[in-house]
Amino acid sequence: MKVAGKPMRTIWAEPDGAVGIIDQTLLPHQLATVRLETPEAAAHAIRAMLVRGAPLIGATAAYGMALAMRRDASDTALDAASALLLATRPTAVNLRWAIEEMGTLLRPLPQGERAAAAWRRAGEIAEEDVALNRAMGRHGRKLIEAVWLREAKRRPVEVLTHCNAGWLATVDWGTALAPIYAAHEAGIPVHVWVDETRPRNQGASLTAWELLQHGVPHTVIVDNAGGHLMQHGRVDLCITGTDRTTAAGDVANKIGTYLKALAAKDNGVPFHVALPSPTIDWSIEDGVRDIPIEERDPGEVTEIAGRLPDGGTARVRLVPEGSAAANYAFDVTPARLVTGLITERGLCAASREGLLSLFPERRARLAGE
Amino acid sequence: MKVAGKPMRTIWAEPDGAVGIIDQTLLPHQLATVRLETPEAAAHAIRAMLVRGAPLIGATAAYGMALAMRRDASDTALDAASALLLATRPTAVNLRWAIEEMGTLLRPLPQGERAAAAWRRAGEIAEEDVALNRAMGRHGRKLIEAVWLREAKRRPVEVLTHCNAGWLATVDWGTALAPIYAAHEAGIPVHVWVDETRPRNQGASLTAWELLQHGVPHTVIVDNAGGHLMQHGRVDLCITGTDRTTAAGDVANKIGTYLKALAAKDNGVPFHVALPSPTIDWSIEDGVRDIPIEERDPGEVTEIAGRLPDGGTARVRLVPEGSAAANYAFDVTPARLVTGLITERGLCAASREGLLSLFPERRARLAGE
Repeated sequence: MKVAGKPMRTIWAEPDGAVGIIDQTLLPHQLATVRLETPEAAAHAIRAMLVRGAPLIGATAAYGMALAMRRDASDTALDAASALLLATRPTAVNLRWAIEEMGTLLRPLPQGERAAAAWRRAGEIAEEDVALNRAMGRHGRKLIEAVWLREAKRRPVEVLTHCNAGWLATVDWGTALAPIYAAHEAGIPVHVWVDETRPRNQGASLTAWELLQHGVPHTVIVDNAGGHLMQHGRVDLCITGTDRTTAAGDVANKIGTYLKALAAKDNGVPFHVALPSPTIDWSIEDGVRDIPIEERDPGEVTEIAGRLPDGGTARVRLVPEGSAAANYAFDVTPARLVTGLITERGLCAASREGLLSLFPERRARLAGE
Repeated sequence: MKVAGKPMRTIWAEPDGAVGIIDQTLLPHQLATVRLETPEAAAHAIRAMLVRGAPLIGATAAYGMALAMRRDASDTALDAASALLLATRPTAVNLRWAIEEMGTLLRPLPQGERAAAAWRRAGEIAEEDVALNRAMGRHGRKLIEAVWLREAKRRPVEVLTHCNAGWLATVDWGTALAPIYAAHEAGIPVHVWVDETRPRNQGASLTAWELLQHGVPHTVIVDNAGGHLMQHGRVDLCITGTDRTTAAGDVANKIGTYLKALAAKDNGVPFHVALPSPTIDWSIEDGVRDIPIEERDPGEVTEIAGRLPDGGTARVRLVPEGSAAANYAFDVTPARLVTGLITERGLCAASREGLLSLFPERRARLAGE
């Protein structure tokens, strides 16, 4: 998507063999790029969250393996790089997948061919992510277009989103924001209500920044506000991303997604979730029961960083010393509250049958289990 | 309630005729008291939100009238003080009520008697607020006690609250927190989930501070977290305050209250609202339709103040320059989502019949309208 008028991605190969990334910890107040030249640098970028979002983490890990192979293509180096990268964020599904994918490709190859093959495959993994997201954008755009036509093109379509499932979380286009970018590209006016998304504020910082840079009209609101807007007819549809989707269509996503889905249901507002199929966990059904919810550092609740009037940044404490805080990272929205899923193969109901209608190859596999 | 082990109120008469208040803008990081000696100082304290919360604003305005009468007990001074104080926060119901109450009392009196009468009546208004809150605490405590007994006294009762409806919003005891303080006083162990309450963060700053000072166990969570906790059986009941209650039991309260009520309903968690009867607006029924929602400065969303590591305070920007923000102050929770109301006369259903069962004198008046 565009930054200051020019197309940009979250990760790219530099002509000299380094890997470029955006340091997302400095957004939205500063755009800085970083050159990764070693697997250690790639691991640090993932661990310190210079890059975040499951698809982008996967692509960064793949490039990290490529950087490792260029330095030393031995089996020892391959194992060491795999272990190093895998330990950065142990729960990310795409991370494990990308590392295993690279290992499976590289291990049978002669050492002399590994560096080139790794570099090529890392690039493909990045391109595959872009293709998935573009496809979700194309399918999801129809939902926005339908509102635009229903309202006789008289006013912008109002979409509410939670957290950041934009291009910054992927290689390009994003998941939940892909339909919005696709509608914008097609000339359909869209206005996005951007949930601030406490803690970590990915909405107020990342989603707002990328919409601003790409020129998509938007308004930041606190996480508390969406229900009020829906009560008053100010939201046409909600679109969020998901970190994990069960075979029954339950979705785990950033904490607070469930509350927005409840409000959408209560007000007859469609609630859609965009997901590339790799985030579907076909092994579980009941998300509330079976998806473990990560508890993170309470410091993310008690303190917050932002830009000082002089342009510097500071971290300030919000909670009195002595008060406890708890920090649950995700919640689970039951499928009954989800109007539909947006996948790279099309739209479907948030149910086992809905998912199997798009991924029929899973039916045989599930039956065989 | 207690601060550092000693009882304290939000407003008090000093022996020398000044009025003492806590400067709540400095909480939770600093406890500072301020002496009000003129009606102008009282007006400033309300306008600049050194005091906030409808009941406390009313008491401060009453004391402001008393300070005015001591300086000049003429009709002109009475009118000027009324106008000055009324203009501070035009939407607060208690503010208007307190000023009119003082005017009605003082105007018929000889000027020589006005200062003493005003001082006495201001003190009564403060005591009446404490009495209302104590009564709500006594009635609401039963809800907490019932859980304690149901669970065979094996674990603390888990209460979730939103915003600050504690003693800091009143003269003492608070509204939503009064049942919690009453239970705590009765030796019933309570743990409070404190919603951060964006924007303005009254939960993270004020509710957490007053619970901490009084010794009530609590944990601060982001506004997004309550639904997840309720899904997992971690909340026994919700208690919030309200700024305005319709005759049908709809409640307007801090933005985000509606989302918690939806989650409570979805998970079978009782959702109670504590309200002194002066906040009931008997003239309207449908809160979503008829209660206007104040839009405040977007700066409350885009910026936040907190304590720096060196002990100073700073305001930092959270949203990129160029992104719009909107700041809706309240939302309306329909009566169908409210399990019950806690008033100074007892508990009742959130409905016209429920309210009339406790306030039967209104039945005749409503019928006569």
